[in-house]
Amino acid sequence: MPKNAFYAQSGGVTAVINATACGVIQTARQHPDKIGNVYAGRNGIIGALTEDLIDTGLESDETIAALRHTPSGAFGSCRYKLKGLDQNRAEYERLIEVFKAHDIGYFFYNGGGDSADTCLKVSQLAETAGFPIQAIHVPKTVDNDLPITDNCPGFGSVAKYIAVSTLEASFDVRSMSKTSTKVFVIEVMGRHAGWIAAAGGLASDEKTHIPVIILFPEVTFDQEKFLAKVKESVERFDYCTVVVSEGTKWADGRFLAEAGTRDAFGHAQLGGAAPVVANMIKEALGYKYHWAVADYLQRAARHLASKTDVDQAYAMGKAAVELALAGKNSVMPTIVRTSDDPYAWEVGAANLAEVANVEKMMPAEFISEDGLGITEACRRYLAPLIQGEDYPPFGNGLPQYVTLKNAPVAKRLDTQFVV
Amino acid sequence: MPKNAFYAQSGGVTAVINATACGVIQTARQHPDKIGNVYAGRNGIIGALTEDLIDTGLESDETIAALRHTPSGAFGSCRYKLKGLDQNRAEYERLIEVFKAHDIGYFFYNGGGDSADTCLKVSQLAETAGFPIQAIHVPKTVDNDLPITDNCPGFGSVAKYIAVSTLEASFDVRSMSKTSTKVFVIEVMGRHAGWIAAAGGLASDEKTHIPVIILFPEVTFDQEKFLAKVKESVERFDYCTVVVSEGTKWADGRFLAEAGTRDAFGHAQLGGAAPVVANMIKEALGYKYHWAVADYLQRAARHLASKTDVDQAYAMGKAAVELALAGKNSVMPTIVRTSDDPYAWEVGAANLAEVANVEKMMPAEFISEDGLGITEACRRYLAPLIQGEDYPPFGNGLPQYVTLKNAPVAKRLDTQFVV
Repeated sequence: MPKNAFYAQSGGVTAVINATACGVIQTARQHPDKIGNVYAGRNGIIGALTEDLIDTGLESDETIAALRHTPSGAFGSCRYKLKGLDQNRAEYERLIEVFKAHDIGYFFYNGGGDSADTCLKVSQLAETAGFPIQAIHVPKTVDNDLPITDNCPGFGSVAKYIAVSTLEASFDVRSMSKTSTKVFVIEVMGRHAGWIAAAGGLASDEKTHIPVIILFPEVTFDQEKFLAKVKESVERFDYCTVVVSEGTKWADGRFLAEAGTRDAFGHAQLGGAAPVVANMIKEALGYKYHWAVADYLQRAARHLASKTDVDQAYAMGKAAVELALAGKNSVMPTIVRTSDDPYAWEVGAANLAEVANVEKMMPAEFISEDGLGITEACRRYLAPLIQGEDYPPFGNGLPQYVTLKNAPVAKRLDTQFVV
Repeated sequence: MPKNAFYAQSGGVTAVINATACGVIQTARQHPDKIGNVYAGRNGIIGALTEDLIDTGLESDETIAALRHTPSGAFGSCRYKLKGLDQNRAEYERLIEVFKAHDIGYFFYNGGGDSADTCLKVSQLAETAGFPIQAIHVPKTVDNDLPITDNCPGFGSVAKYIAVSTLEASFDVRSMSKTSTKVFVIEVMGRHAGWIAAAGGLASDEKTHIPVIILFPEVTFDQEKFLAKVKESVERFDYCTVVVSEGTKWADGRFLAEAGTRDAFGHAQLGGAAPVVANMIKEALGYKYHWAVADYLQRAARHLASKTDVDQAYAMGKAAVELALAGKNSVMPTIVRTSDDPYAWEVGAANLAEVANVEKMMPAEFISEDGLGITEACRRYLAPLIQGEDYPPFGNGLPQYVTLKNAPVAKRLDTQFVV
């Protein structure tokens, strides 16, 4: 009897994480001699800890194929970081107990840096426990902060959404600036790194000439310099667009979004860097503004996914299974860029020991000298990642996203585990 | 020599107002014996008042065709309401002076209720002044509040954007609700009417079953009832999505967005109904939330335009010229719905006297009894308007929107006019 596989989605979901799930499940189905059932964790790793497994074998081929064009996490995801082995060995042991009970020989964990670490530890502990499990980490994160891989599935589609939204809103403001809004502020995700904010810069090119000003988490906010740039842009173009990362900070380390905003009851943190920036401009320069906060819309926007991103997300799922079939353990498939223009990439692999707990920051040479824009090097890196469209099928005007049956696998353990 | 035509865009721009411009210019170009040049107002009617006209004849056929897939106002728009004849007759007289100087016999004014009124007055005054101008109003408004026409070009695409965004973000929240966000709040446009907010309700159907709660400007905000509904939805589905119109008001008439929000300097009106609603939920029920404010993204999102909307926007431009050629004056082409399912529509015409200063509100029977959702009647009305996709061409990952040359027409008047 071939071993079964376990697949789980971890952390914030994306427009394409289900494309990775599709790659894992479709590839596994092609090798029934080597891989038995693919069980998914309901709500990610919590499903493994609580022995709440989903039998993906009960989903039709057609339904699994539809995962490729469905955003969000089809089996549920969670924000649940396993503690270190020293602090909570019981959790790791529980995972292995569940995997053992369901004869799981392959562990595919689809997430960011934290899950790479968990994946590595599970593999190590399973080895020690005499129940070897091939643990493969499958990269996913809109934050684009995993090392070794050239980029992370999920990021390209957010980047495309932000580039397109910045372009469209800028055209809107440009046409109204004579009598109305002169400054448009859009807030984007990225608490630690400015990858997503940088993508807003792609809206401006030799054809559009949009004055885009970017506020990065990597660059300490300099109010005076920023306002001077806004003024200069509006005086020259009659409008400008500001892309502000939610992670932008004051010199004292506070987030812009925490800049003392209070509601009627005096509660802090209504949130939003965009309204803070917009109001600051109004106060100092008197320009009429509008602002938007894209929030989940940006990472859920499968309708505008990057084809490059979808292809890579699927390829990572497929490669994960192929690595497992090749006998690999404690590895992560990666995207290897072989050429910028024309863009070319291939699948590689990295040892999890080199991935876990390493955060890839945006290189300094990707940020322009004034700290408020992107460089040509950044543009060369980003541009290929948003290439191509991959529209979901529509019906009645709406994308036809799939919802799975997510039928549970019968429990085999008497023990409960409380998370 | 045939008379020239003047075309201007008025008020907030949309994803498809340029499709209307495309319809006007392409149709005019087919009748060089009847219509000479088409001049556009730079920044709308201000361009007419200041004799700042754009010669659309200098734009290639290819460029004009590209207007069909380009959002925003290609000639610039403005928020500039002409006063009544009694208060500022000079403005109307100036318009006629400019039109006379440039031999303009056709006035196409593309906007909402205010511009319909202006259009009517220009026609009346021109008649009196012995320089008859055929004034045709061309409908446009995301607010969907013009009378007689079944719907307004611009609305269908915003509705589609909000329906799709609500669907996508809801899938995201649904997959994370076990350990993370339980309530997602999206703020949408519509200061006076809930048409756009209502479109969020389309995300929920017999396949998705998304618990969508809608806050309409038409329904006085009842905090207790709203929170009870949020609680009930989260207890049943583990998550819910709230679509809040920027125009939602407290019982005392204040906007939710004005609910006392203050920045660090004590300034009111950082704005945003979404953060107010989200914070209220957190305070009362303790649920983790995320919120988004779509703002201009929703009305600029040509990448996700409704094909029905694009077709109708173009058809209104074409019909406007055809009405002019048929000798009509003081009219507006309209969309006449002839069937809900299958959806069918045809072009009609309305007298401007019946359009000007009449606002079409959302019928009470479109809002569910509890005031927090849409009815089947509303769904039947809205569903056809978001049907079909009409993707712009993409290049390098971005939509290829056109920017016109917008070359000025030589001035013929010595007089200046200050607006």
